[in-house]
Amino acid sequence: MKHLLLAAAVASLAFPVTAQEPAPIPSPGEIAAAAPASDWTAIAPSDLLVMDLAPDARGKARRVVIQLMPAPFSQGWIGNIRKLSAAHWWDGTSINRVQDNYVVQWGDATEKKAMPEGLVMVPENAYLSQRQRGRTTWLPFTNGAYAPHHGVVAGWPVAWNVDAAWPVHCYGMVGVGRNLSPDTGTGAELYTVIGHAPRHLDRNIALVGRVISGIEHLSSLPRGTGALGFYETEAERVPIASVRIATELPEANQPRFEYLSTESDSFARYADARANRRDPFFIKPAGGADICNIPVPVRAVGEGSK
Amino acid sequence: MKHLLLAAAVASLAFPVTAQEPAPIPSPGEIAAAAPASDWTAIAPSDLLVMDLAPDARGKARRVVIQLMPAPFSQGWIGNIRKLSAAHWWDGTSINRVQDNYVVQWGDATEKKAMPEGLVMVPENAYLSQRQRGRTTWLPFTNGAYAPHHGVVAGWPVAWNVDAAWPVHCYGMVGVGRNLSPDTGTGAELYTVIGHAPRHLDRNIALVGRVISGIEHLSSLPRGTGALGFYETEAERVPIASVRIATELPEANQPRFEYLSTESDSFARYADARANRRDPFFIKPAGGADICNIPVPVRAVGEGSK
Repeated sequence: MKHLLLAAAVASLAFPVTAQEPAPIPSPGEIAAAAPASDWTAIAPSDLLVMDLAPDARGKARRVVIQLMPAPFSQGWIGNIRKLSAAHWWDGTSINRVQDNYVVQWGDATEKKAMPEGLVMVPENAYLSQRQRGRTTWLPFTNGAYAPHHGVVAGWPVAWNVDAAWPVHCYGMVGVGRNLSPDTGTGAELYTVIGHAPRHLDRNIALVGRVISGIEHLSSLPRGTGALGFYETEAERVPIASVRIATELPEANQPRFEYLSTESDSFARYADARANRRDPFFIKPAGGADICNIPVPVRAVGEGSK
Repeated sequence: MKHLLLAAAVASLAFPVTAQEPAPIPSPGEIAAAAPASDWTAIAPSDLLVMDLAPDARGKARRVVIQLMPAPFSQGWIGNIRKLSAAHWWDGTSINRVQDNYVVQWGDATEKKAMPEGLVMVPENAYLSQRQRGRTTWLPFTNGAYAPHHGVVAGWPVAWNVDAAWPVHCYGMVGVGRNLSPDTGTGAELYTVIGHAPRHLDRNIALVGRVISGIEHLSSLPRGTGALGFYETEAERVPIASVRIATELPEANQPRFEYLSTESDSFARYADARANRRDPFFIKPAGGADICNIPVPVRAVGEGSK
């Protein structure tokens, strides 16, 4: 069957290798899959936000797992997310907006639901601390239009210039919806990117995490026909059954994930291979890659992640 | 209602403007919408490939319109597409693959359907002619990882280096599926990008056009659960009712489109605004933009395009 090569995951190509031929050069996904266990880092269950949508039309469960950015990427306002989850605030809210090649957004469509006490206002963006910035691995082949430097730190894609460093709006990143005023977001209204990275939002909206499992339950939803892709009727909105920090779930139902340590040799080889595809399908390696085309490999561990 | 700003289309923000306040700076979509008629270029109906999928579960029509790249982007093999369409070859074939953040692919799932005569083999990529390259508008703020220069020519996004210029794999671009051998594609198996631009495919697979209407009928399909996102059962595949060049359709059913001329002053202002968002929502203009974040505005004209 004719196919394009798989972007990031492992592709079994059924490529015939005879004794006379050298082994094909591994794809980025094969490099990640072959990484030793010591190159994988467990994600703390307390940093996993588990969003269960109402089952689909066929009764199938729809679970979306979001990895929250640990401090110092996102300071006090991750506390908002934890408070909203602890208060079961999102239970009974809905997916309200699906704009093609842009974002899926969820929260309280009525905008009237009372907030838990003690929320802080989220500023327009989270910057990295000097210390975090100093630990960043520069990927020199990623230089692009949005910043002179891009790289990764502690599993997250970041950009920086002479003044500051910040996490970037790649596919699947989760941020805080806001109004025109930069401090009108609380985290109750969240969105995730389902299209080409809208990097113009960097430093204009605070990012708080990324979808690491189940994004297809969001990205394949019908597009909204209202302005900005909002659903126009209640019937179109997708109910959110519950949102919990993983540690609040029964142990057997807790998802567990690991990411390929961005400080590991395996990640360095993976990133290089993303920028210079030499596996059998490719003829001309690009010699570079957009930071959002080097997604940090994440894998599920154990039964609760299914 | 809290919202992010619309990516490319026009957003009515209901932003209050009093006599004391200056008018807000227009968004890129507003600049395009305000462009004079003379800045819009009609797309030849003979360059429109109209793909009608089977109606959805609610009986709603699903039309996808693809603009074929005119010569000299894509030489002889666009003739393959025309021959396949004229032979009604795609009628009764199906959407066979939907891989999240990557591609939707369609064609003959059995791989046994006889081909029309006279097809040429498609090489791994189409390059621009020297003449076309000389007419390209450079967008200096787009420099990125994949090429030293990016710009637009005759309505298409392109990249170039010291050796050559080529069209690029942005969201919605349509290319020719192939096997490991670079010359195994005919154009019968096509794909479109539904995620972050997979620019590593540039110069590795030939592009032949882009979806200009109805991509949501492809991007919102359920993701395939097989390797590379292929559907695993016949029941999952989405039947293609017909594929026709627009001129083969009854006149009342012919879609008509225009694009914002990439040589126009309006396009220059639109592109600058995409790179430097100064409309009310934004706080920090990026100062640059990825070429795939400057989608060429396209608009439908007349009833047949609905």
